[in-house]
Amino acid sequence: MVSDLGKEAIELHKKFMGKIAVKSLYKVADRHTLALAYTPGVADVSLHVRDHPETAFDLTCKGRLACVVSDGTRVLGLGDIGPLGALPVMEGKCMLLKSFGNVDAVPLCLDTKNEDEIVAVVKAIAPSFGAILLEDFSSPKCFAIEKRLESMLDVPVFHDDQHGTAIVALAGLINALKLTAREDKKSVKIVISGCGAAGVAIARLFHAYGFRKISIADSKGAVCRPRSDLEEYKKELLPILEPSEPVSLKQLLAGADVFVGASAPNILKAEDIKTMAEKPIVFALSNPTPEISPEAAQAGGAFIYGSGRSDLPNQINNALGFPGIFRGLLDCRAKRVSMGMKLAAAQAIAKLAQKEGLSAQKIVPDPFDKKLAKVVAKAVMKAAKKEGLARA
Amino acid sequence: MVSDLGKEAIELHKKFMGKIAVKSLYKVADRHTLALAYTPGVADVSLHVRDHPETAFDLTCKGRLACVVSDGTRVLGLGDIGPLGALPVMEGKCMLLKSFGNVDAVPLCLDTKNEDEIVAVVKAIAPSFGAILLEDFSSPKCFAIEKRLESMLDVPVFHDDQHGTAIVALAGLINALKLTAREDKKSVKIVISGCGAAGVAIARLFHAYGFRKISIADSKGAVCRPRSDLEEYKKELLPILEPSEPVSLKQLLAGADVFVGASAPNILKAEDIKTMAEKPIVFALSNPTPEISPEAAQAGGAFIYGSGRSDLPNQINNALGFPGIFRGLLDCRAKRVSMGMKLAAAQAIAKLAQKEGLSAQKIVPDPFDKKLAKVVAKAVMKAAKKEGLARA
Repeated sequence: MVSDLGKEAIELHKKFMGKIAVKSLYKVADRHTLALAYTPGVADVSLHVRDHPETAFDLTCKGRLACVVSDGTRVLGLGDIGPLGALPVMEGKCMLLKSFGNVDAVPLCLDTKNEDEIVAVVKAIAPSFGAILLEDFSSPKCFAIEKRLESMLDVPVFHDDQHGTAIVALAGLINALKLTAREDKKSVKIVISGCGAAGVAIARLFHAYGFRKISIADSKGAVCRPRSDLEEYKKELLPILEPSEPVSLKQLLAGADVFVGASAPNILKAEDIKTMAEKPIVFALSNPTPEISPEAAQAGGAFIYGSGRSDLPNQINNALGFPGIFRGLLDCRAKRVSMGMKLAAAQAIAKLAQKEGLSAQKIVPDPFDKKLAKVVAKAVMKAAKKEGLARA
Repeated sequence: MVSDLGKEAIELHKKFMGKIAVKSLYKVADRHTLALAYTPGVADVSLHVRDHPETAFDLTCKGRLACVVSDGTRVLGLGDIGPLGALPVMEGKCMLLKSFGNVDAVPLCLDTKNEDEIVAVVKAIAPSFGAILLEDFSSPKCFAIEKRLESMLDVPVFHDDQHGTAIVALAGLINALKLTAREDKKSVKIVISGCGAAGVAIARLFHAYGFRKISIADSKGAVCRPRSDLEEYKKELLPILEPSEPVSLKQLLAGADVFVGASAPNILKAEDIKTMAEKPIVFALSNPTPEISPEAAQAGGAFIYGSGRSDLPNQINNALGFPGIFRGLLDCRAKRVSMGMKLAAAQAIAKLAQKEGLSAQKIVPDPFDKKLAKVVAKAVMKAAKKEGLARA
């Protein structure tokens, strides 16, 4: 059954045949402009770029184009819907990059699910682009794909399901902690549910920010040293996690200040929230159905509730992050994305909401806030320059 | 030394940071349009496309986007200048597709020269596109790449250096034969110089059109059965060539009606043209320097002279073909490009010039002719439908 919203979406997509198109930056109106944009004039541009490869950022679309790449194996809450099924989402991402960040981006949906092939394809197409956005690759291969590409390419590679989510969650948490007067990062007790792309990235970014009491649970309970069933990427997380026995998520939650869900619908009840510390902060980011409904969270005493839902306050949505982040990456021609740049993006998002006035119902900016992408881009550029990762 | 035109071209490219950008087809202006273009509404679009893959042409950019792919190994007259060096040319091709054919196209310059990798990459990125334009791949791998991709993909794959050149050359030749009152296709003696991408495609298209006296010479002379040094792709041509002894290009030329050069600069002199039949037709397509200068050709008695040069009459330029061809391929959602569609494109180009009035100085239309892409697109679509190769 297709919802009314879904029917309207299908009609809109049909009306425009998708969501993005290509435009010429100037008119090929006569023989002279043709000779400049194409042969024979373009030959000198090509030779110049061949001899000075960095000028590709000045003289070609490489300086402006990002690429949104997916293999369609983990799209929204829909799972593995293949490259064609993923295309409307990736095109949507390109549209948001344009609408919110004025970033020119192209969707590439890949007809392969093989890690080695994906890495080879993205490496091969990278010359045309100034930045690569990876999207909706299933976990755990998403970690290896990103890591391998980062080591090969001289342009940023950013898996938004990991870092976009983590950045916006951190922005929200910074402000939620402010509102609940929790000043000592080191003592804030955080429980993350879900050890996939988002959960792992949230743990790592939170640790880099300075939190020191981070626990994470997968479907089998606390990710901890005594467990013998941990995949390699989960084992790699252990050094930044609170030591724990193999207890359940609910046991971890007792006394916690913060819950961040990046896992599955409806896994918590009001009574679970009641076991948390005073003024608990609950981010239930599972999409479209959160880990706990806003009503149940409220009944359990949640002081601040955030989710991925657009019909509720405090939408912890990647769209707050990636358009500004990519604007910044392209504007400074970044060589890669660092932890420092991610932290700077989160802090810029948090700060903008602070300027506009925080409340328990508004811990993050509105995605339509015109200042948002600008302040994020600026922060990313500043951090890139400070770390020597900017070309311009 | 960079020419003044080259300097102006570099400045223009710098001013606009390349030549193409991406645009949104409608505005994401509020939460409702966001919910339609992105989550949650896009989920229904994605599921619809997953369940009915053909609707990707209606509901996504696949219906409008072409991809211009190159590995930069044989760019213009510049040779192997690599993927970054090739990017200004491929972006230029996208710009011409837009300017002349209103086709949305994206340049992908590949960081690999390996045939198997190129095939794997293009296959992998194909879901996003409704048609693939291959450009400036070195010969002979260009033949295998195109053939392998054609057998794998359900969208057209078109190597412009082969077929674009052949189509426009045939269009010019149809009209040159008209002007010189050569009515019997079967008796027209044609000599092609160069057995690379263009030469091979010209021979095949000319044969499909009905010419029966075609000879072709590579740098070692006539491609013929007695030679023991022929590569496989040259051997495959033998059945459509005039039987010959291993003579030189100049020996082949004696008595020929038509010379088509797709080889090297300045290989012919006025006296060579003098050995040809009466009212000889000379297409010297080597770029930027033709096989014989217009002055020398004239001194030798050439009745009609065509070249790739934009500063001379009768520019036999791919730009006359590919924008309309790709417009047609996308508009009818073609499954592949057939010989019949290529012939139809050539005939449409020839016919438009006829309508506008033929002369020895005007055997093909002007690339800025607004009717051109339309008549070519229409002819390509009609042929596709006739052959059952159109989806729409």
